[in-house]
Amino acid sequence: MNELLENLVKSNKKLTKKGEVASYIPALENANKDDLGICLADLDGNFYTAGDYNKKFTIQSISKTVTLMLAIMDNGEKEVFKKVGMEPTGDAFNSIIKLETTMPSKPLNPMINAGAIVISSLIKGKNKDDKFNRLLDFVRKITRNQNININKEVYLSEKRTGDRNRAMAYFMRDVGIIKGDVEDILDLYFKQCSLEVNCVDIANIGLFLANEGVVPETNEVLANKYITRLVKTFMITCGMYNGSGEFAINVGIPAKSGVGGGILASIPNNMGIGVYGPSLDEKGNSIGGYGILKELSEEKNLSIF
Amino acid sequence: MNELLENLVKSNKKLTKKGEVASYIPALENANKDDLGICLADLDGNFYTAGDYNKKFTIQSISKTVTLMLAIMDNGEKEVFKKVGMEPTGDAFNSIIKLETTMPSKPLNPMINAGAIVISSLIKGKNKDDKFNRLLDFVRKITRNQNININKEVYLSEKRTGDRNRAMAYFMRDVGIIKGDVEDILDLYFKQCSLEVNCVDIANIGLFLANEGVVPETNEVLANKYITRLVKTFMITCGMYNGSGEFAINVGIPAKSGVGGGILASIPNNMGIGVYGPSLDEKGNSIGGYGILKELSEEKNLSIF
Amino acid sequence: MNELLENLVKSNKKLTKKGEVASYIPALENANKDDLGICLADLDGNFYTAGDYNKKFTIQSISKTVTLMLAIMDNGEKEVFKKVGMEPTGDAFNSIIKLETTMPSKPLNPMINAGAIVISSLIKGKNKDDKFNRLLDFVRKITRNQNININKEVYLSEKRTGDRNRAMAYFMRDVGIIKGDVEDILDLYFKQCSLEVNCVDIANIGLFLANEGVVPETNEVLANKYITRLVKTFMITCGMYNGSGEFAINVGIPAKSGVGGGILASIPNNMGIGVYGPSLDEKGNSIGGYGILKELSEEKNLSIF
Amino acid sequence: MNELLENLVKSNKKLTKKGEVASYIPALENANKDDLGICLADLDGNFYTAGDYNKKFTIQSISKTVTLMLAIMDNGEKEVFKKVGMEPTGDAFNSIIKLETTMPSKPLNPMINAGAIVISSLIKGKNKDDKFNRLLDFVRKITRNQNININKEVYLSEKRTGDRNRAMAYFMRDVGIIKGDVEDILDLYFKQCSLEVNCVDIANIGLFLANEGVVPETNEVLANKYITRLVKTFMITCGMYNGSGEFAINVGIPAKSGVGGGILASIPNNMGIGVYGPSLDEKGNSIGGYGILKELSEEKNLSIF
Repeated sequence: MNELLENLVKSNKKLTKKGEVASYIPALENANKDDLGICLADLDGNFYTAGDYNKKFTIQSISKTVTLMLAIMDNGEKEVFKKVGMEPTGDAFNSIIKLETTMPSKPLNPMINAGAIVISSLIKGKNKDDKFNRLLDFVRKITRNQNININKEVYLSEKRTGDRNRAMAYFMRDVGIIKGDVEDILDLYFKQCSLEVNCVDIANIGLFLANEGVVPETNEVLANKYITRLVKTFMITCGMYNGSGEFAINVGIPAKSGVGGGILASIPNNMGIGVYGPSLDEKGNSIGGYGILKELSEEKNLSIF
Repeated sequence: MNELLENLVKSNKKLTKKGEVASYIPALENANKDDLGICLADLDGNFYTAGDYNKKFTIQSISKTVTLMLAIMDNGEKEVFKKVGMEPTGDAFNSIIKLETTMPSKPLNPMINAGAIVISSLIKGKNKDDKFNRLLDFVRKITRNQNININKEVYLSEKRTGDRNRAMAYFMRDVGIIKGDVEDILDLYFKQCSLEVNCVDIANIGLFLANEGVVPETNEVLANKYITRLVKTFMITCGMYNGSGEFAINVGIPAKSGVGGGILASIPNNMGIGVYGPSLDEKGNSIGGYGILKELSEEKNLSIF
Repeated sequence: MNELLENLVKSNKKLTKKGEVASYIPALENANKDDLGICLADLDGNFYTAGDYNKKFTIQSISKTVTLMLAIMDNGEKEVFKKVGMEPTGDAFNSIIKLETTMPSKPLNPMINAGAIVISSLIKGKNKDDKFNRLLDFVRKITRNQNININKEVYLSEKRTGDRNRAMAYFMRDVGIIKGDVEDILDLYFKQCSLEVNCVDIANIGLFLANEGVVPETNEVLANKYITRLVKTFMITCGMYNGSGEFAINVGIPAKSGVGGGILASIPNNMGIGVYGPSLDEKGNSIGGYGILKELSEEKNLSIF
Repeated sequence: MNELLENLVKSNKKLTKKGEVASYIPALENANKDDLGICLADLDGNFYTAGDYNKKFTIQSISKTVTLMLAIMDNGEKEVFKKVGMEPTGDAFNSIIKLETTMPSKPLNPMINAGAIVISSLIKGKNKDDKFNRLLDFVRKITRNQNININKEVYLSEKRTGDRNRAMAYFMRDVGIIKGDVEDILDLYFKQCSLEVNCVDIANIGLFLANEGVVPETNEVLANKYITRLVKTFMITCGMYNGSGEFAINVGIPAKSGVGGGILASIPNNMGIGVYGPSLDEKGNSIGGYGILKELSEEKNLSIF
């Protein structure tokens, strides 16, 4: 398997030239465009790695899968889906239009920014710090990595330039979907996006989802079958931005990407995968990571369809 | 299994009172609101049935899965997806907005009406009748039922009242996505929607998809793994109208519904299911059929996630 | 005055190079790009002309002002505005979006295509020919020109390529705003757009509006103060496509343009103006005609504001 | 004239029962629903009044006319209209959709909230207070009323509940239309809306516009012909929210309304009118004020069309 992964990294390296590193904040722009790495973790406890699998990157939108689980456990599924929908959307991840045209107004799903901000607003805690610490603790347990922390430079950049997210948050407070201090809610959102991880961490999240909410080895139960299945479903229907449908067809694996260059993938009852490659295609997905997952899925017949 | 199915039909019968039979054409309005039936066909050749499994109904939007396969085999995947996208949409199945706002203009996917009309326009044939006959032949082979035919009353009703579809077709001809005589293209579309089937026929389509394009028993190869997988993926991401995301979460099975009351479901490498119940929920999906599939999925652990 | 007009034609001639002749149908494409002419008719019976004032061109969207008057007289204001609104729109003249998003669905005003098609559908007559003949008769009386007729080549071209208009018409029949045979309604619409006129004819329409519905000289009363004022108001708020607001600010005269290159202008209780210049700006308004009207308004202080 | 105005107030009093007082902030909700008053000021120096002409109310959106003039004088017309358009819109005054769909993104006109916020951001001054004081000074000079000030309660309410405006402002900062501290810009916007005036003040603004930028009596020149004409044009095309087109047809006078219940009207080279009646129709315009202006326009033939 290690050899297969090495080959996949090698054969997809050329794709990285065709993409672009995210440029909306300086910290991301400095990434190494041709980095490419993968970690695959299966339920038997095996870890396979190749390429730049231990390089650090910010988790960005991949965090939406984790906060969704926590918000459901904090509030119950019913409360959560009163405020955010379950349907994919043909609009951009940062589009504000449907908030105005959907009645009653609520974001279509928790994977677009508006929906993810709602989810962040539902994380419980005594105060802003407590909320973040609960999230951080949850991520550390899932990944079995106590060293995960935020990248301060990225966090501050996100905060400084996050006006589109502010626009959505204020719109949603205006129509009553979110309550409380908008800057506090966004602060948690910017922090969750700035969590620094590597491919192994992401593979562990995928493994946790594949294992239906039980952390392998520690056997700690942090979520349940229903919640982890729900997350994997959202990954298929809306995990890869406006390329989700195409990815589902071409790869057939539940996956969630982030503009930091990571992709989280999870094969139900089988394995978790973390891929990293900061060169993005025009939809915001890691171009090399997409290629690796496509070939891996074909090679190992991993499609769920 | 037969007993389980009988129980599912019984326990979901009450749901039929909460829905409404489609009313946009008289022929559909006359359906028996509390009809409910199911047929399940597995790859071992077993057929299980319960309730009104042999009542006839029109296939409606379920036909979109069949024409998609034929259009891809007629034109190649590349040509087809130049003219229709692969992405789910948060808009209604008959919405025309995205045709104007998407550049270059093309329907987001083949499961919404605009996309399905494009697909119908791509079916090859010497003339209008030849095109329909090729489609009919394809359906009859997949279902192993030579008696399938159109319901003339429904067909004529669809034709008479299909102005929204005409609007979309003319818009698409204006921007160059479809070519040829619009009424001829729509005639094929209305005919495909008016094909009369029962739960066994639908289960057979599901079985064909589960079996990756090979007709069981006859072993005739009518499609391939890639095409049938693609269809199942579209069923998950956009098969149940604006309730696709929720259905994927709650049921987790590739499915396609029609306003005639049918639902086609396919469990990869396992089985095909046809359900019929003309009482629809507010999204246009069979309300009793949805309930049956949900319980069946839980009972037999059929979710692909 | 004749000298002033000659100078205006001369000084604005250079603008014609910056625009483009309408190209969606061949007949329009053949127009002489640097043609430019004007006719000004005042209530004292004076006619002033300059440049290509007697070249023929098709009236196109300018006809919307005339059919609106006829439809109101045929049906009453109340009936007409049940089916079309009175408000300007920020969308394109051929946009279909608002038909789907406005509830109850009706075109925002009679100057955009959808609204004008509704208006055409309201013209009374025993049959399709009778309706057109009534309209033709009305136009001939207003212009005091019995020779006005349709340009067959343009009419047939419009009919052949009018799919966007068909899309809107079928959409509107689907939601119940228009009734009857869509092709018949569009036939009248395409014919009204294909009426062939020159600057003198257009100036006479403007004079008729300025004179509150009374034909000068013949003193025939064909409309009334309220209707002609209503038309002039629509000309200010939505007469110049997506440049209506800017034109109102820069010129301040009620005006309606057509892609044939004509502009109709009317100064209340004062004069009517017809301008012709087939070179269009990016909004579809005669670029030279706009320039002439702007300078003329400044020179003679014609703004109504 | 005083008698005519008295009669108009009396005859339109019954309309106030059909409307509703603005309820989005408590301070507005406390207004007297059946208040109705008018002041008419002509260029000969006459002032005519009737009803509750001296009751105070907050100027709200009427302020958009004043800030527009100041912003143009501060920045030049060219700079201002780089950032805001000149076209009317069929969307609601607080709609955010067009900001996302228009490319390059800019509000369609300065009379909708997004456009007015841009305009406020362009008012010059050393700091936030200086900017407001310059605006206040401008308003006081135009109205010849040194006692005009903000209603603190309304101002604080607006600030507390202005999340929709915040959403638009952050969106616009994200796309680069506005620069600087959003809360500071909105503070000026909320303050300008909270200026407390009566019908006489509003009539004076109308008179100033009618007099082309010269304050009567003092003869102070505060604006010019072009700018005041531009404002009157915007009042016709977009001054009465989504009822602008209908008002232009029915009344034919440049007018701008505010949800405080005021309407500013200006007859070019003739007179200014201020009307007050806090009972609003469903579009947000004073229902009694609309009625008075309609009858007055008919009686005195004031339509500009």
